[in-house]
Amino acid sequence: MTATDEFTRRLRGVLERRYHHLHPFNQRMHRGELSREELQLWVTNRFYYQVKIPIKDALILANCPEPEVRRKWIQRIVDHDGRDGGGDGAGGGEEGGIEAWLRLGEAMGVGREEMVSHRRLLPGVRFAVDAYVEFCRSRPWLEAVAASLTELFAPLIVKERLAAILSHYPWVDPEGLQYFRNRLAQAPRDAEHAIALVTERFRTRADQERAVAALDFKCDVLWCLLDAVERGPLPGWEA
Amino acid sequence: MTATDEFTRRLRGVLERRYHHLHPFNQRMHRGELSREELQLWVTNRFYYQVKIPIKDALILANCPEPEVRRKWIQRIVDHDGRDGGGDGAGGGEEGGIEAWLRLGEAMGVGREEMVSHRRLLPGVRFAVDAYVEFCRSRPWLEAVAASLTELFAPLIVKERLAAILSHYPWVDPEGLQYFRNRLAQAPRDAEHAIALVTERFRTRADQERAVAALDFKCDVLWCLLDAVERGPLPGWEA
Repeated sequence: MTATDEFTRRLRGVLERRYHHLHPFNQRMHRGELSREELQLWVTNRFYYQVKIPIKDALILANCPEPEVRRKWIQRIVDHDGRDGGGDGAGGGEEGGIEAWLRLGEAMGVGREEMVSHRRLLPGVRFAVDAYVEFCRSRPWLEAVAASLTELFAPLIVKERLAAILSHYPWVDPEGLQYFRNRLAQAPRDAEHAIALVTERFRTRADQERAVAALDFKCDVLWCLLDAVERGPLPGWEA
Repeated sequence: MTATDEFTRRLRGVLERRYHHLHPFNQRMHRGELSREELQLWVTNRFYYQVKIPIKDALILANCPEPEVRRKWIQRIVDHDGRDGGGDGAGGGEEGGIEAWLRLGEAMGVGREEMVSHRRLLPGVRFAVDAYVEFCRSRPWLEAVAASLTELFAPLIVKERLAAILSHYPWVDPEGLQYFRNRLAQAPRDAEHAIALVTERFRTRADQERAVAALDFKCDVLWCLLDAVERGPLPGWEA
């Protein structure tokens, strides 16, 4: 096994042990055991993560001094924010991931205004997601790239989730599931770019420890997000 | 009732509904129902909050342009960091709250090195505490002062905790409880200064909403800290 293979295997090992596909709330979702209210609370709170994705990617762009890396990475922002039409009257605009998530929320019975207002955003979700954004702002950009490697396992969870929602939650409008279908194409491309950067650039043992720590941290973020949703609203909230 | 009284009552109302004396984990602690491991996990994780207190107070100093306010506020930093002796060979140094918390941990059977290393710091605790520090860094200093008003209820919880530990956890060395005794004197003085500032300076309805929101936020921080401790280590951790 080459040193690169071994490093890659170590990164995948983090995900095998700690990615949020193992979280009890996620497992209940995929077994069809969530109530309508629980699924709605999840989609509403996860929206806060969704809106922060292009922010954290812009911070990575801002911290990365290499145009050739930025030229690829910028696609992630476009994927989430969408793209305006060409202005030639022929249309050609593209809906982004944020809009697709709003449609997912609507398909689950949550109004778009309710999601955009973040009225039901749980503090634990906000703290975890903000920690991720702050990580991308303050840490070396390659560590933020390493943190993004949860994308390696995204197709796995997304495929399962798509099937689970279709079969266990018939009240969810299947038209609203386009977000997941898009991610099945985007995530592998993103993960491939990121893993190539990480394995090419993190060469020393100390570097590789930093990459593993970044991925560990990102697993903490996703896990704590689901912890907060599972626990639900704090006392004294006007819901 | 004067407008100030009404505002004060509103702030106290936030604490009555949302302060962490209501948290199930705190209530179990005070009823004597925590295991040794749970109490140790609490003291170790809460240490991260303790070490950030002087940091957030220094950020408030840094953001406050008024020397007469800073002259009082600085005492909080001294209370937590301690004070060196006079250098006249006569001693006269003072132990601060951080040192006192380390002694509390030792009295509960947690080594000082283990606490200082933050080896067992739970991600949810780190995210919540870091959010508080970031709040004090980025928001107007008077909002950070309003967030500190949880001190209004601190004597209540500290008095109960002191009695609970003495009666329910006989294995905790009572010598180690000085931190709580110190806070019983310090917290009322700090809270009095803070509530005077908040009620004098937040005069409009919009200002008062911001003060209430800051205190709500701080209650979220303390609550989420206990949520994370109650839930315990994430999977895949080497403990």
